[in-house]
Amino acid sequence: MPAFPRFAPQEAHHLPEAFYNIKADLPEPPPPALHPGTRQPLTAADWSPVFSRGFIEHEMSRERFIPIPEEVRKAMALYRPTPLVYASGLRDALGTPAHIFYKYEGAGPMGSHKSNTALVQAYLATRDGLTTLVTETGAGQWGSALAHAGALFGIKVKVFMVRVSYRQKPGRRTLMEMFGAEVDESPSPKTRFGRTLYEKDPDHPGSLGIAISEALEVALKGTNSRYSLGSVLDAVLMHQSVIGLEAESQMADYGISPDTVIGCVGGGSNFGGLAFPFIRRRLAGGPATRFLAVEPEACPSLTKGELRYDHGDAAGMTPLIFMHTLGMDFVPAPIHAGGLRYHGMAPLVSRLAAQGIVEPQAVSTKTVFDAARLFYKAEGILPAPESAHAVAAAIAEALEAKRLGREKIILFGLSGHGFLDLNAYAANGKN
Amino acid sequence: MPAFPRFAPQEAHHLPEAFYNIKADLPEPPPPALHPGTRQPLTAADWSPVFSRGFIEHEMSRERFIPIPEEVRKAMALYRPTPLVYASGLRDALGTPAHIFYKYEGAGPMGSHKSNTALVQAYLATRDGLTTLVTETGAGQWGSALAHAGALFGIKVKVFMVRVSYRQKPGRRTLMEMFGAEVDESPSPKTRFGRTLYEKDPDHPGSLGIAISEALEVALKGTNSRYSLGSVLDAVLMHQSVIGLEAESQMADYGISPDTVIGCVGGGSNFGGLAFPFIRRRLAGGPATRFLAVEPEACPSLTKGELRYDHGDAAGMTPLIFMHTLGMDFVPAPIHAGGLRYHGMAPLVSRLAAQGIVEPQAVSTKTVFDAARLFYKAEGILPAPESAHAVAAAIAEALEAKRLGREKIILFGLSGHGFLDLNAYAANGKN
Repeated sequence: MPAFPRFAPQEAHHLPEAFYNIKADLPEPPPPALHPGTRQPLTAADWSPVFSRGFIEHEMSRERFIPIPEEVRKAMALYRPTPLVYASGLRDALGTPAHIFYKYEGAGPMGSHKSNTALVQAYLATRDGLTTLVTETGAGQWGSALAHAGALFGIKVKVFMVRVSYRQKPGRRTLMEMFGAEVDESPSPKTRFGRTLYEKDPDHPGSLGIAISEALEVALKGTNSRYSLGSVLDAVLMHQSVIGLEAESQMADYGISPDTVIGCVGGGSNFGGLAFPFIRRRLAGGPATRFLAVEPEACPSLTKGELRYDHGDAAGMTPLIFMHTLGMDFVPAPIHAGGLRYHGMAPLVSRLAAQGIVEPQAVSTKTVFDAARLFYKAEGILPAPESAHAVAAAIAEALEAKRLGREKIILFGLSGHGFLDLNAYAANGKN
Repeated sequence: MPAFPRFAPQEAHHLPEAFYNIKADLPEPPPPALHPGTRQPLTAADWSPVFSRGFIEHEMSRERFIPIPEEVRKAMALYRPTPLVYASGLRDALGTPAHIFYKYEGAGPMGSHKSNTALVQAYLATRDGLTTLVTETGAGQWGSALAHAGALFGIKVKVFMVRVSYRQKPGRRTLMEMFGAEVDESPSPKTRFGRTLYEKDPDHPGSLGIAISEALEVALKGTNSRYSLGSVLDAVLMHQSVIGLEAESQMADYGISPDTVIGCVGGGSNFGGLAFPFIRRRLAGGPATRFLAVEPEACPSLTKGELRYDHGDAAGMTPLIFMHTLGMDFVPAPIHAGGLRYHGMAPLVSRLAAQGIVEPQAVSTKTVFDAARLFYKAEGILPAPESAHAVAAAIAEALEAKRLGREKIILFGLSGHGFLDLNAYAANGKN
């Protein structure tokens, strides 16, 4: 009997053996994170009460390629490589000469790209002897990915979930609890910071910034516990590079590379994961690929925010991070793309936007849901509201190519499916 | 620029060019359906007010292979071939020497196998000049698949949805309405038969049999409208044969064939679709493969029902069908596997069970959800409660192989994902 690969043997080789770290290729990296008290650049020792040792090594590394631990690669092989789909249905529906591809991360266990870094973080934490990871979640995709990863590697997971999403998305909570995670509505009465808000208003809708503060507070109080973050940080974007590395390898099978790469941005990890391996080529003098980072008009950190030092949370407990920000106390409107409701932006994405390599775009909720419905009918996959931001931009690019009669190649990230977001579709019109 | 295939070129050839019709290979086919009035075998003319002409041809054909219409094949190519996954995670979790494969139909647009026949039925109806299809749905997978297919081919779809599911699963209704379908709770006040029940109890939970009666009544009343059924009938099982034909071709790439084939059964189409191409080999004197049809203990038509003529609906409007049945007025407990709550069973599956080729099994709800949670953790795919019946049987087979130290090959059908059934998981325990 042969040893069976998980998928057809001709596909498995696309799963990379190492993460790509774009910091090795940036002529000038972003300014370092600062200690919130001293305002001095953070050292590994400063980070150590917050993150696992393995994670800090990833965060601080300047190596170009960092091997994916064998245990993580085995867990990723349960769903990777994810499909690179040629959007024949969408192409027909738009009547465009453009060739549209999407990298479908919704094929992952929790239905989004978040598992890519969750598996790494849970593995590194157990390897370092930790017993608990504490985190926050907005729409619930990150929280459920970490809950799943924690169950796989045997580490306890505690999640503070933004109250508005906790109430809108009971399914996400069920997923987390199914994997043994402990889930609290945020702001909660369980933390010092949460109580200050909870006691004034037990129905406070919450925000990612507030939930981060609560998670951090609990992580720092515990023994053998650390905090876990699902986006923004350099290490997280590096873990997500598996998306772009696979896409690059899959497109190479066709002998092509994209003219335009598109992703939605909340904290920036899905976009960075897809785009950075292609940006590497451009930085090395390769093709002049365009990179579009698409955010909601309701939370426009890249298009309207300032580039400066700011805290990552609402309480001012995190280090100061040099990034595009709407301000740590910005509370975005309760749009359904909960994963994009964050006041800041990954320093690496902020940097590349400031350099003009990444082009930010903001789109309206109506444009997003119209695009999502068109895509679903044409392609048969229901996008998560977050991912639908990238769909909207891809459609606009494809229609522009039609106007110009150009046979360009568009690659976008479909970061998750929307089966747990049907209430968002019900609330945003029918046809 | 090359012409891009939908998926990697080495995969596309698995999508078959013709449906497989097992009636061509049965030494003795099941007794024919009878007219409910005259009790004479039904002719094509008898069927014509009910179904489209093209569908009746499929239903009555004895040809072994019937070409898949080009338009349907193009629509199927949006999601087919579906993955044949080697369950490495489940194998490790069970510590079994068995090799477990599953054919994952949840990759389809509505998350289940139902699109396979929905696309054919919508296409045939429009080809025959019809303007409306009326149907019923239990859990909503069939209704949403037909709504999607109707939107693709441009035909109006009306759906009667069993009230208990209509209220439990608002997401399914959103999906149907997103594609322009008209959805009513059943029993409804819109039909003569529905009114007899609705007027006594506006909260009557409904059943598939009742909803079929309502859909049939509306289809017969309309001009240019016909009825559409998502399971049970010979033609539907034939459309679903794409599942088994693909699996056969995909396994041939490894040079293997299954020792045991497992599917869940409600009306029988998912099971028949997977199993019949393999049963063909056994009927032709090939390997003595085992075929397990798994049903819920709460609706045990194969294991406890009688093999006799019965109506397919609750009002006695349908033809008399020779099948395993619990009686047309049987109302199953409101288990969450709504797609398996049907009093009857496909005549072809009933026949093969009576001949001893198909082995029926009934499993408890607890066994099913325990299996689903184990599978989700090991494999990263959340099964629909219906599909989890097959998962439970596959796990039992794999553990039996472990006890015997046998390296057997198990193939089961994972007919759909469970992301729209999280309330069922929430209601059926945690770990």
